[in-house]
Amino acid sequence: LLLLDCGEGTQMQLRKSAYRFQRISHIFISHLHGDHYFGLIGLLNTFHLLGRSQQLNLYGIPPLIDLINLQLDLSRTTLAYPLVFHPFETEIPSVIVDDGEITVSTIPLNHRVPTCGFLISEKPEKRKIVKEFLAKAKVPIHYFDRIKSGEDFTNEDGKVFPNREITEDPPLVRSYAYCTDTAYHEPIIPIIKNCNLLYHEATFMEDKAADAHAKFHSTAREAAVIAMKAGAKQLLIGHYSARYKDLDHLLDEARKVFPNTLLGQDGMMIEV
Amino acid sequence: LLLLDCGEGTQMQLRKSAYRFQRISHIFISHLHGDHYFGLIGLLNTFHLLGRSQQLNLYGIPPLIDLINLQLDLSRTTLAYPLVFHPFETEIPSVIVDDGEITVSTIPLNHRVPTCGFLISEKPEKRKIVKEFLAKAKVPIHYFDRIKSGEDFTNEDGKVFPNREITEDPPLVRSYAYCTDTAYHEPIIPIIKNCNLLYHEATFMEDKAADAHAKFHSTAREAAVIAMKAGAKQLLIGHYSARYKDLDHLLDEARKVFPNTLLGQDGMMIEV
Repeated sequence: LLLLDCGEGTQMQLRKSAYRFQRISHIFISHLHGDHYFGLIGLLNTFHLLGRSQQLNLYGIPPLIDLINLQLDLSRTTLAYPLVFHPFETEIPSVIVDDGEITVSTIPLNHRVPTCGFLISEKPEKRKIVKEFLAKAKVPIHYFDRIKSGEDFTNEDGKVFPNREITEDPPLVRSYAYCTDTAYHEPIIPIIKNCNLLYHEATFMEDKAADAHAKFHSTAREAAVIAMKAGAKQLLIGHYSARYKDLDHLLDEARKVFPNTLLGQDGMMIEV
Repeated sequence: LLLLDCGEGTQMQLRKSAYRFQRISHIFISHLHGDHYFGLIGLLNTFHLLGRSQQLNLYGIPPLIDLINLQLDLSRTTLAYPLVFHPFETEIPSVIVDDGEITVSTIPLNHRVPTCGFLISEKPEKRKIVKEFLAKAKVPIHYFDRIKSGEDFTNEDGKVFPNREITEDPPLVRSYAYCTDTAYHEPIIPIIKNCNLLYHEATFMEDKAADAHAKFHSTAREAAVIAMKAGAKQLLIGHYSARYKDLDHLLDEARKVFPNTLLGQDGMMIEV
Protein backbone atom coordinates (compact mmCIF):
# COMPACT_ATOMS: atom_id res chain seq x y z
CA LEU A 1 0.00 0.00 0.00
CA LEU A 2 1.17 3.47 -0.87
CA LEU A 3 0.17 6.55 1.10
CA LEU A 4 0.18 9.95 -0.60
CA ASP A 5 0.48 12.75 1.98
CA CYS A 6 -0.41 12.44 5.64
CA GLY A 7 -2.27 15.32 7.29
CA GLU A 8 -3.15 15.45 10.98
CA GLY A 9 -5.45 12.61 11.98
CA THR A 10 -4.54 10.37 9.02
CA GLN A 11 -3.91 7.46 11.39
CA MET A 12 -7.42 7.82 12.82
CA GLN A 13 -8.91 7.86 9.30
CA LEU A 14 -6.82 4.83 8.30
CA ARG A 15 -8.15 2.88 11.26
CA LYS A 16 -11.66 3.48 9.95
CA SER A 17 -10.75 2.20 6.48
CA ALA A 18 -10.93 -1.33 5.13
CA TYR A 19 -7.15 -1.49 4.77
CA ARG A 20 -4.67 -2.84 7.28
CA PHE A 21 -2.61 0.30 7.56
CA GLN A 22 0.45 -1.62 8.72
CA ARG A 23 0.68 -2.81 5.10
CA ILE A 24 1.69 0.68 3.98
CA SER A 25 5.22 0.30 2.64
CA HIS A 26 5.74 3.68 0.97
CA ILE A 27 4.73 7.17 2.08
CA PHE A 28 5.08 10.16 -0.25
CA ILE A 29 4.93 13.73 1.07
CA SER A 30 4.19 16.33 -1.62
CA HIS A 31 5.23 19.40 0.38
CA LEU A 32 5.67 20.70 3.90
CA HIS A 33 2.39 22.47 4.51
CA GLY A 34 0.71 21.10 7.61
CA ASP A 35 -2.38 19.64 5.97
CA HIS A 36 -0.05 17.36 4.00
CA TYR A 37 2.30 16.09 6.69
CA PHE A 38 1.36 16.94 10.31
CA GLY A 39 0.03 13.38 10.76
CA LEU A 40 3.25 11.73 9.58
CA ILE A 41 5.20 11.74 12.86
CA GLY A 42 2.18 10.28 14.68
CA LEU A 43 1.77 7.50 12.12
CA LEU A 44 5.50 6.66 12.29
CA ASN A 45 5.23 6.48 16.08
CA THR A 46 2.14 4.31 15.97
CA PHE A 47 3.88 1.84 13.64
CA HIS A 48 6.67 1.75 16.24
CA LEU A 49 4.29 1.21 19.17
CA LEU A 50 2.50 -1.57 17.26
CA GLY A 51 5.82 -3.39 16.89
CA ARG A 52 6.23 -2.98 13.14
CA SER A 53 9.35 -4.66 11.77
CA GLN A 54 9.00 -4.21 8.00
CA GLN A 55 10.90 -1.43 6.28
CA LEU A 56 9.03 1.80 5.59
CA ASN A 57 10.08 3.96 2.66
CA LEU A 58 9.53 7.68 3.01
CA TYR A 59 9.79 10.18 0.15
CA GLY A 60 9.96 13.95 0.57
CA ILE A 61 12.17 16.99 0.33
CA PRO A 62 15.38 16.83 2.40
CA PRO A 63 14.25 18.88 5.45
CA LEU A 64 11.46 16.38 6.14
CA ILE A 65 13.82 13.81 7.62
CA ASP A 66 15.52 16.42 9.82
CA LEU A 67 12.14 17.24 11.32
CA ILE A 68 11.31 13.57 11.90
CA ASN A 69 14.71 12.88 13.46
CA LEU A 70 14.44 15.91 15.74
CA GLN A 71 11.08 14.70 17.05
CA LEU A 72 12.35 11.15 17.53
CA ASP A 73 15.41 12.48 19.36
CA LEU A 74 13.32 14.68 21.67
CA SER A 75 11.19 11.70 22.70
CA ARG A 76 14.27 9.45 22.86
CA THR A 77 12.64 7.04 20.42
CA THR A 78 14.58 4.58 18.30
CA LEU A 79 12.12 3.20 15.77
CA ALA A 80 11.65 -0.58 15.94
CA TYR A 81 11.60 -0.81 12.12
CA PRO A 82 13.87 0.51 9.35
CA LEU A 83 12.72 3.90 8.11
CA VAL A 84 14.46 4.61 4.82
CA PHE A 85 14.25 8.17 3.62
CA HIS A 86 14.46 8.91 -0.10
CA PRO A 87 14.87 12.65 -0.67
CA PHE A 88 13.79 14.17 -3.97
CA GLU A 89 14.30 17.51 -5.67
CA THR A 90 11.27 19.48 -6.77
CA GLU A 91 12.67 21.18 -9.87
CA ILE A 92 12.78 18.34 -12.40
CA PRO A 93 10.63 15.21 -12.69
CA SER A 94 12.36 11.99 -11.70
CA VAL A 95 11.59 8.32 -11.11
CA ILE A 96 11.73 7.71 -7.36
CA VAL A 97 10.34 4.14 -7.24
CA ASP A 98 10.85 1.31 -9.75
CA ASP A 99 10.09 -2.04 -8.20
CA GLY A 100 9.54 -4.01 -11.41
CA GLU A 101 5.75 -3.75 -11.23
CA ILE A 102 5.20 -0.03 -10.83
CA THR A 103 7.09 3.20 -11.10
CA VAL A 104 6.47 6.35 -9.13
CA SER A 105 7.67 9.63 -10.62
CA THR A 106 7.63 13.14 -9.24
CA ILE A 107 5.55 15.84 -10.93
CA PRO A 108 7.01 19.29 -10.18
CA LEU A 109 4.12 21.62 -9.29
CA ASN A 110 3.76 25.37 -8.88
CA HIS A 111 2.98 26.18 -5.26
CA ARG A 112 4.10 28.64 -2.59
CA VAL A 113 6.73 26.18 -1.28
CA PRO A 114 8.67 23.40 -3.08
CA THR A 115 6.03 20.84 -4.09
CA CYS A 116 5.77 17.71 -6.19
CA GLY A 117 2.85 15.58 -7.24
CA PHE A 118 3.30 11.88 -7.94
CA LEU A 119 2.58 9.72 -10.97
CA ILE A 120 2.06 6.03 -10.19
CA SER A 121 2.30 3.86 -13.31
CA GLU A 122 2.17 0.16 -13.89
CA LYS A 123 5.13 -1.03 -15.91
CA PRO A 124 4.14 -2.41 -19.32
CA GLU A 125 4.29 -6.17 -19.57
CA LYS A 126 6.09 -7.74 -22.53
CA ARG A 127 4.22 -8.61 -25.76
CA LYS A 128 2.27 -11.90 -25.79
CA ILE A 129 3.12 -14.60 -28.35
CA VAL A 130 0.00 -15.72 -30.26
CA LYS A 131 -0.97 -19.18 -28.95
CA GLU A 132 -1.82 -20.64 -32.37
CA PHE A 133 1.64 -19.68 -33.68
CA LEU A 134 3.39 -21.29 -30.70
CA ALA A 135 1.44 -24.50 -31.34
CA LYS A 136 2.42 -24.56 -35.06
CA ALA A 137 5.98 -23.20 -35.24
CA LYS A 138 8.84 -24.87 -33.44
CA VAL A 139 10.03 -21.90 -31.36
CA PRO A 140 13.07 -22.72 -29.19
CA ILE A 141 12.38 -21.78 -25.58
CA HIS A 142 15.37 -19.41 -25.44
CA TYR A 143 13.68 -17.39 -28.24
CA PHE A 144 10.51 -16.68 -26.22
CA ASP A 145 11.83 -13.64 -24.38
CA ARG A 146 13.29 -12.15 -27.58
CA ILE A 147 9.92 -12.41 -29.36
CA LYS A 148 8.08 -11.00 -26.32
CA SER A 149 10.51 -8.09 -26.38
CA GLY A 150 9.57 -7.33 -30.01
CA GLU A 151 12.01 -9.32 -32.22
CA ASP A 152 10.94 -11.11 -35.38
CA PHE A 153 11.34 -14.90 -35.45
CA THR A 154 13.37 -16.78 -38.08
CA ASN A 155 12.77 -20.55 -38.19
CA GLU A 156 15.18 -23.36 -39.17
CA ASP A 157 14.22 -22.98 -42.83
CA GLY A 158 15.15 -19.27 -42.76
CA LYS A 159 11.54 -18.11 -42.93
CA VAL A 160 10.97 -14.78 -41.15
CA PHE A 161 7.80 -14.19 -39.11
CA PRO A 162 7.36 -10.46 -38.40
CA ASN A 163 6.84 -9.76 -34.71
CA ARG A 164 3.56 -7.90 -35.19
CA GLU A 165 2.05 -11.05 -36.84
CA ILE A 166 3.05 -13.51 -34.12
CA THR A 167 2.44 -11.39 -31.00
CA GLU A 168 -0.36 -9.44 -29.36
CA ASP A 169 -0.23 -6.17 -27.45
CA PRO A 170 0.21 -6.62 -23.69
CA PRO A 171 -2.59 -5.41 -21.39
CA LEU A 172 -2.79 -1.65 -21.18
CA VAL A 173 -0.97 -0.17 -18.22
CA ARG A 174 -2.80 2.02 -15.75
CA SER A 175 -1.60 5.20 -14.15
CA TYR A 176 -2.73 7.54 -11.41
CA ALA A 177 -1.53 11.13 -11.23
CA TYR A 178 -1.78 12.99 -7.92
CA CYS A 179 -1.38 16.75 -8.29
CA THR A 180 -1.71 18.87 -5.15
CA ASP A 181 -1.16 21.69 -4.20
CA THR A 182 -0.64 23.74 -7.33
CA ALA A 183 -1.63 26.73 -9.38
CA TYR A 184 -2.73 26.02 -12.96
CA HIS A 185 0.50 24.68 -14.40
CA GLU A 186 0.68 23.42 -17.99
CA PRO A 187 4.19 21.92 -17.70
CA ILE A 188 2.63 18.94 -15.89
CA ILE A 189 0.57 18.00 -18.97
CA PRO A 190 3.24 15.95 -20.82
CA ILE A 191 4.12 14.13 -17.59
CA ILE A 192 0.56 13.02 -16.80
CA LYS A 193 -0.44 12.48 -20.47
CA ASN A 194 -3.25 9.91 -20.91
CA CYS A 195 -3.33 8.90 -17.24
CA ASN A 196 -6.32 6.81 -16.20
CA LEU A 197 -7.12 8.89 -13.16
CA LEU A 198 -5.99 12.41 -12.38
CA TYR A 199 -6.41 13.82 -8.90
CA HIS A 200 -6.07 17.57 -9.24
CA GLU A 201 -6.70 20.09 -6.50
CA ALA A 202 -9.63 22.48 -6.94
CA THR A 203 -9.42 24.78 -3.95
CA PHE A 204 -11.60 27.50 -5.45
CA MET A 205 -14.22 28.18 -8.11
CA GLU A 206 -13.78 30.65 -10.94
CA ASP A 207 -15.41 33.45 -8.92
CA LYS A 208 -12.30 33.34 -6.73
CA ALA A 209 -9.77 32.87 -9.54
CA ALA A 210 -7.76 35.86 -8.30
CA ASP A 211 -7.51 34.28 -4.82
CA ALA A 212 -6.52 30.98 -6.39
CA HIS A 213 -3.68 32.55 -8.35
CA ALA A 214 -2.48 34.66 -5.41
CA LYS A 215 -2.35 31.56 -3.21
CA PHE A 216 -0.90 29.22 -5.86
CA HIS A 217 -4.05 27.11 -5.95
CA SER A 218 -6.36 26.10 -8.81
CA THR A 219 -10.02 26.52 -9.62
CA ALA A 220 -12.29 23.61 -10.46
CA ARG A 221 -12.39 24.79 -14.06
CA GLU A 222 -8.59 24.90 -14.24
CA ALA A 223 -8.35 21.35 -12.89
CA ALA A 224 -10.73 20.28 -15.65
CA VAL A 225 -8.74 22.11 -18.35
CA ILE A 226 -5.59 20.27 -17.24
CA ALA A 227 -7.48 16.93 -17.34
CA MET A 228 -8.78 17.69 -20.83
CA LYS A 229 -5.44 18.84 -22.23
CA ALA A 230 -3.66 15.84 -20.71
CA GLY A 231 -6.18 13.40 -22.14
CA ALA A 232 -6.89 11.97 -18.67
CA LYS A 233 -9.64 9.35 -18.63
CA GLN A 234 -11.11 10.51 -15.35
CA LEU A 235 -10.66 13.52 -13.07
CA LEU A 236 -10.98 13.53 -9.30
CA ILE A 237 -11.08 16.96 -7.65
CA GLY A 238 -10.42 17.80 -4.00
CA HIS A 239 -8.72 20.15 -1.49
CA TYR A 240 -11.74 22.46 -1.38
CA SER A 241 -11.69 25.75 0.44
CA ALA A 242 -13.81 25.67 3.61
CA ARG A 243 -15.81 28.58 2.12
CA TYR A 244 -17.74 26.17 -0.14
CA LYS A 245 -20.54 24.46 1.76
CA ASP A 246 -22.15 22.87 -1.32
CA LEU A 247 -19.40 21.08 -3.22
CA ASP A 248 -21.70 20.25 -6.14
CA HIS A 249 -21.01 23.73 -7.48
CA LEU A 250 -17.33 22.83 -7.84
CA LEU A 251 -18.29 19.57 -9.53
CA ASP A 252 -20.60 21.37 -11.97
CA GLU A 253 -17.91 23.89 -12.86
CA ALA A 254 -15.40 21.15 -13.62
CA ARG A 255 -17.88 18.97 -15.55
CA LYS A 256 -18.67 21.82 -17.95
CA VAL A 257 -15.10 21.42 -19.22
CA PHE A 258 -14.40 17.76 -18.42
CA PRO A 259 -17.57 15.69 -17.98
CA ASN A 260 -15.94 12.61 -16.42
CA THR A 261 -15.15 14.37 -13.15
CA LEU A 262 -15.65 12.95 -9.64
CA LEU A 263 -15.96 14.90 -6.41
CA GLY A 264 -13.29 13.67 -4.00
CA GLN A 265 -14.67 12.94 -0.54
CA ASP A 266 -13.43 11.38 2.71
CA GLY A 267 -13.18 7.61 2.63
CA MET A 268 -13.86 7.34 -1.11
CA MET A 269 -12.63 4.23 -2.94
CA ILE A 270 -12.02 4.34 -6.70
CA GLU A 271 -11.03 1.44 -8.92
CA VAL A 272 -8.65 2.55 -11.66
CA LEU B 1 -9.37 28.79 28.61
CA LEU B 2 -6.27 26.79 29.42
CA LEU B 3 -5.24 23.71 27.45
CA LEU B 4 -3.07 21.07 29.11
CA ASP B 5 -1.20 19.00 26.50
CA CYS B 6 -2.21 18.65 22.88
CA GLY B 7 -1.96 15.20 21.27
CA GLU B 8 -2.70 14.52 17.61
CA GLY B 9 -6.30 15.33 16.73
CA THR B 10 -6.86 17.68 19.67
CA GLN B 11 -8.23 20.34 17.32
CA MET B 12 -10.82 17.89 15.99
CA GLN B 13 -11.86 17.00 19.56
CA LEU B 14 -12.03 20.67 20.52
CA ARG B 15 -14.37 21.36 17.60
CA LYS B 16 -16.73 18.74 19.03
CA SER B 17 -16.70 20.36 22.48
CA ALA B 18 -18.96 23.07 23.85
CA TYR B 19 -16.07 25.52 24.10
CA ARG B 20 -15.04 28.07 21.50
CA PHE B 21 -11.48 26.85 21.15
CA GLN B 22 -10.30 30.23 19.91
CA ARG B 23 -10.73 31.35 23.52
CA ILE B 24 -7.75 29.24 24.57
CA SER B 25 -5.16 31.74 25.79
CA HIS B 26 -2.60 29.41 27.43
CA ILE B 27 -1.29 26.01 26.30
CA PHE B 28 0.90 23.92 28.60
CA ILE B 29 2.93 20.98 27.25
CA SER B 30 4.03 18.51 29.94
CA HIS B 31 6.68 16.70 27.88
CA LEU B 32 7.71 15.90 24.33
CA HIS B 33 6.19 12.47 23.83
CA GLY B 34 3.93 12.47 20.79
CA ASP B 35 0.66 11.75 22.57
CA HIS B 36 1.15 15.02 24.46
CA TYR B 37 2.14 17.43 21.70
CA PHE B 38 1.79 16.12 18.13
CA GLY B 39 -1.44 18.10 17.75
CA LEU B 40 0.10 21.39 18.84
CA ILE B 41 1.53 22.55 15.51
CA GLY B 42 -1.79 21.82 13.80
CA LEU B 43 -3.75 23.79 16.39
CA LEU B 44 -1.34 26.75 16.12
CA ASN B 45 -1.78 26.68 12.32
CA THR B 46 -5.55 26.48 12.58
CA PHE B 47 -5.62 29.53 14.86
CA HIS B 48 -3.56 31.29 12.16
CA LEU B 49 -5.87 30.22 9.33
CA LEU B 50 -8.92 31.32 11.32
CA GLY B 51 -7.42 34.80 11.60
CA ARG B 52 -6.72 34.80 15.32
CA SER B 53 -5.25 38.05 16.60
CA GLN B 54 -5.13 37.54 20.39
CA GLN B 55 -1.87 36.53 22.01
CA LEU B 56 -1.33 32.85 22.72
CA ASN B 57 0.93 31.83 25.59
CA LEU B 58 2.78 28.54 25.21
CA TYR B 59 4.61 26.79 28.04
CA GLY B 60 7.04 23.91 27.59
CA ILE B 61 10.67 22.87 27.72
CA PRO B 62 13.02 24.96 25.55
CA PRO B 63 13.30 22.60 22.51
CA LEU B 64 9.54 22.83 21.93
CA ILE B 65 9.77 26.29 20.41
CA ASP B 66 12.64 25.25 18.12
CA LEU B 67 10.43 22.50 16.73
CA ILE B 68 7.50 24.87 16.22
CA ASN B 69 9.70 27.49 14.56
CA LEU B 70 11.27 24.90 12.26
CA GLN B 71 7.85 23.78 11.09
CA LEU B 72 6.65 27.36 10.61
CA ASP B 73 9.81 28.17 8.64
CA LEU B 74 9.43 25.13 6.39
CA SER B 75 5.88 26.15 5.47
CA ARG B 76 6.93 29.83 5.24
CA THR B 77 4.24 30.73 7.74
CA THR B 78 4.32 33.91 9.82
CA LEU B 79 1.63 33.51 12.44
CA ALA B 80 -1.08 36.17 12.33
CA TYR B 81 -1.12 36.40 16.14
CA PRO B 82 1.57 36.81 18.82
CA LEU B 83 2.79 33.43 20.05
CA VAL B 84 4.70 33.98 23.27
CA PHE B 85 6.77 31.06 24.45
CA HIS B 86 7.51 30.65 28.15
CA PRO B 87 10.17 27.98 28.66
CA PHE B 88 10.35 26.15 31.98
CA GLU B 89 12.87 23.88 33.64
CA THR B 90 11.71 20.47 34.83
CA GLU B 91 13.95 20.02 37.87
CA ILE B 92 12.37 22.38 40.40
CA PRO B 93 8.77 23.54 40.80
CA SER B 94 8.11 27.12 39.77
CA VAL B 95 5.24 29.52 39.24
CA ILE B 96 4.86 30.05 35.50
CA VAL B 97 1.57 32.01 35.45
CA ASP B 98 0.31 34.58 37.95
CA ASP B 99 -2.41 36.73 36.44
CA GLY B 100 -3.96 38.00 39.68
CA GLU B 101 -6.79 35.47 39.62
CA ILE B 102 -4.94 32.18 39.23
CA THR B 103 -1.46 30.81 39.42
CA VAL B 104 -0.08 27.90 37.45
CA SER B 105 2.94 26.08 38.88
CA THR B 106 5.03 23.27 37.46
CA ILE B 107 5.10 19.89 39.21
CA PRO B 108 8.35 18.05 38.37
CA LEU B 109 7.48 14.43 37.56
CA ASN B 110 9.50 11.24 37.13
CA HIS B 111 9.25 10.06 33.53
CA ARG B 112 11.57 8.77 30.80
CA VAL B 113 12.09 12.29 29.43
CA PRO B 114 11.95 15.70 31.19
CA THR B 115 8.34 16.12 32.32
CA CYS B 116 6.27 18.47 34.45
CA GLY B 117 2.71 18.36 35.61
CA PHE B 118 0.80 21.59 36.32
CA LEU B 119 -1.01 22.89 39.38
CA ILE B 120 -3.70 25.46 38.65
CA SER B 121 -4.76 27.39 41.77
CA GLU B 122 -7.13 30.21 42.38
CA LYS B 123 -5.51 33.03 44.31
CA PRO B 124 -7.08 33.60 47.73
CA GLU B 125 -9.30 36.65 47.93
CA LYS B 126 -8.80 39.10 50.81
CA ARG B 127 -10.70 38.69 54.08
CA LYS B 128 -14.25 40.06 54.20
CA ILE B 129 -15.19 42.77 56.69
CA VAL B 130 -18.24 41.77 58.72
CA LYS B 131 -21.20 43.85 57.43
CA GLU B 132 -22.66 44.56 60.89
CA PHE B 133 -19.32 45.97 62.05
CA LEU B 134 -19.06 48.26 59.02
CA ALA B 135 -22.57 49.58 59.74
CA LYS B 136 -21.73 50.32 63.38
CA ALA B 137 -18.13 51.49 63.43
CA LYS B 138 -16.97 54.51 61.53
CA VAL B 139 -14.24 52.89 59.42
CA PRO B 140 -12.49 55.36 57.12
CA ILE B 141 -12.52 54.08 53.53
CA HIS B 142 -8.73 54.10 53.29
CA TYR B 143 -8.71 51.54 56.15
CA PHE B 144 -10.80 48.94 54.27
CA ASP B 145 -7.92 47.34 52.41
CA ARG B 146 -5.75 47.17 55.54
CA ILE B 147 -8.49 45.33 57.47
CA LYS B 148 -9.13 43.00 54.50
CA SER B 149 -5.42 42.25 54.49
CA GLY B 150 -5.55 41.14 58.14
CA GLU B 151 -4.83 44.29 60.22
CA ASP B 152 -6.67 45.10 63.42
CA PHE B 153 -8.72 48.33 63.46
CA THR B 154 -8.21 51.13 65.99
CA ASN B 155 -11.01 53.71 66.12
CA GLU B 156 -10.85 57.43 66.97
CA ASP B 157 -11.26 56.61 70.66
CA GLY B 158 -8.23 54.32 70.58
CA LYS B 159 -10.32 51.17 70.91
CA VAL B 160 -8.76 48.16 69.18
CA PHE B 161 -10.93 45.67 67.26
CA PRO B 162 -8.96 42.46 66.60
CA ASN B 163 -9.06 41.47 62.92
CA ARG B 164 -10.47 38.00 63.56
CA GLU B 165 -13.55 39.56 65.24
CA ILE B 166 -14.38 42.02 62.47
CA THR B 167 -13.64 39.90 59.38
CA GLU B 168 -14.66 36.61 57.85
CA ASP B 169 -12.61 34.06 55.95
CA PRO B 170 -12.66 34.59 52.19
CA PRO B 171 -14.16 31.84 50.00
CA LEU B 172 -11.99 28.75 49.79
CA VAL B 173 -9.69 28.64 46.80
CA ARG B 174 -9.85 25.77 44.41
CA SER B 175 -6.97 23.94 42.75
CA TYR B 176 -6.51 21.35 40.03
CA ALA B 177 -3.35 19.26 39.78
CA TYR B 178 -2.53 17.58 36.48
CA CYS B 179 0.12 14.87 36.79
CA THR B 180 1.05 12.94 33.66
CA ASP B 181 3.21 11.04 32.65
CA THR B 182 4.97 9.80 35.76
CA ALA B 183 6.10 6.86 37.81
CA TYR B 184 4.91 6.80 41.44
CA HIS B 185 6.68 9.88 42.77
CA GLU B 186 6.16 11.03 46.37
CA PRO B 187 8.00 14.37 45.97
CA ILE B 188 4.87 15.72 44.24
CA ILE B 189 2.77 15.26 47.38
CA PRO B 190 3.67 18.53 49.16
CA ILE B 191 3.14 20.46 45.92
CA ILE B 192 -0.37 19.13 45.26
CA LYS B 193 -1.39 19.02 48.95
CA ASN B 194 -5.16 19.31 49.52
CA CYS B 195 -5.95 20.01 45.85
CA ASN B 196 -9.63 19.80 44.95
CA LEU B 197 -9.09 17.62 41.91
CA LEU B 198 -6.05 15.53 41.07
CA TYR B 199 -5.62 14.11 37.60
CA HIS B 200 -3.05 11.35 37.89
CA GLU B 201 -2.07 8.95 35.16
CA ALA B 202 -2.91 5.27 35.69
CA THR B 203 -1.42 3.55 32.67
CA PHE B 204 -1.41 0.07 34.22
CA MET B 205 -2.97 -2.04 36.96
CA GLU B 206 -1.02 -3.66 39.76
CA ASP B 207 -0.65 -6.91 37.77
CA LYS B 208 1.65 -4.95 35.47
CA ALA B 209 3.46 -2.97 38.19
CA ALA B 210 6.84 -4.11 36.86
CA ASP B 211 5.96 -2.77 33.38
CA ALA B 212 4.75 0.46 34.95
CA HIS B 213 8.03 0.99 36.80
CA ALA B 214 10.17 0.03 33.80
CA LYS B 215 8.30 2.53 31.62
CA PHE B 216 8.08 5.29 34.24
CA HIS B 217 4.31 5.03 34.46
CA SER B 218 1.96 4.44 37.42
CA THR B 219 -0.64 1.88 38.33
CA ALA B 220 -4.20 2.79 39.27
CA ARG B 221 -3.42 1.86 42.88
CA GLU B 222 -0.35 4.10 42.93
CA ALA B 223 -2.40 7.03 41.60
CA ALA B 224 -4.84 6.46 44.44
CA VAL B 225 -2.06 6.29 47.04
CA ILE B 226 -0.75 9.66 45.86
CA ALA B 227 -4.28 11.12 46.05
CA MET B 228 -4.73 9.77 49.58
CA LYS B 229 -1.34 10.94 50.87
CA ALA B 230 -1.83 14.38 49.29
CA GLY B 231 -5.28 14.78 50.82
CA ALA B 232 -6.82 15.41 47.40
CA LYS B 233 -10.60 15.79 47.48
CA GLN B 234 -11.16 13.92 44.23
CA LEU B 235 -9.03 11.80 41.91
CA LEU B 236 -9.40 11.54 38.15
CA ILE B 237 -7.42 8.75 36.48
CA GLY B 238 -6.49 8.43 32.81
CA HIS B 239 -3.79 7.58 30.22
CA TYR B 240 -4.77 3.92 30.19
CA SER B 241 -2.75 1.29 28.35
CA ALA B 242 -4.57 0.02 25.26
CA ARG B 243 -4.33 -3.47 26.79
CA TYR B 244 -7.26 -2.71 29.13
CA LYS B 245 -10.60 -3.12 27.35
CA ASP B 246 -12.72 -2.80 30.49
CA LEU B 247 -11.60 0.32 32.32
CA ASP B 248 -13.82 -0.39 35.31
CA HIS B 249 -11.09 -2.70 36.59
CA LEU B 250 -8.73 0.27 36.84
CA LEU B 251 -11.42 2.29 38.59
CA ASP B 252 -12.07 -0.52 41.08
CA GLU B 253 -8.37 -0.84 41.86
CA ALA B 254 -8.06 2.89 42.57
CA ARG B 255 -11.29 3.09 44.59
CA LYS B 256 -10.07 0.40 46.99
CA VAL B 257 -7.46 2.94 48.15
CA PHE B 258 -9.20 6.23 47.35
CA PRO B 259 -12.99 5.91 47.02
CA ASN B 260 -13.64 9.32 45.45
CA THR B 261 -12.05 8.38 42.14
CA LEU B 262 -13.41 9.12 38.66
CA LEU B 263 -12.57 7.35 35.43
CA GLY B 264 -11.30 9.92 32.94
CA GLN B 265 -12.95 9.59 29.54
CA ASP B 266 -13.03 11.53 26.25
CA GLY B 267 -15.17 14.66 26.36
CA MET B 268 -15.75 14.52 30.11
CA MET B 269 -16.62 17.74 31.94
CA ILE B 270 -15.96 18.11 35.67
CA GLU B 271 -16.87 21.03 37.87
CA VAL B 272 -14.23 21.67 40.52
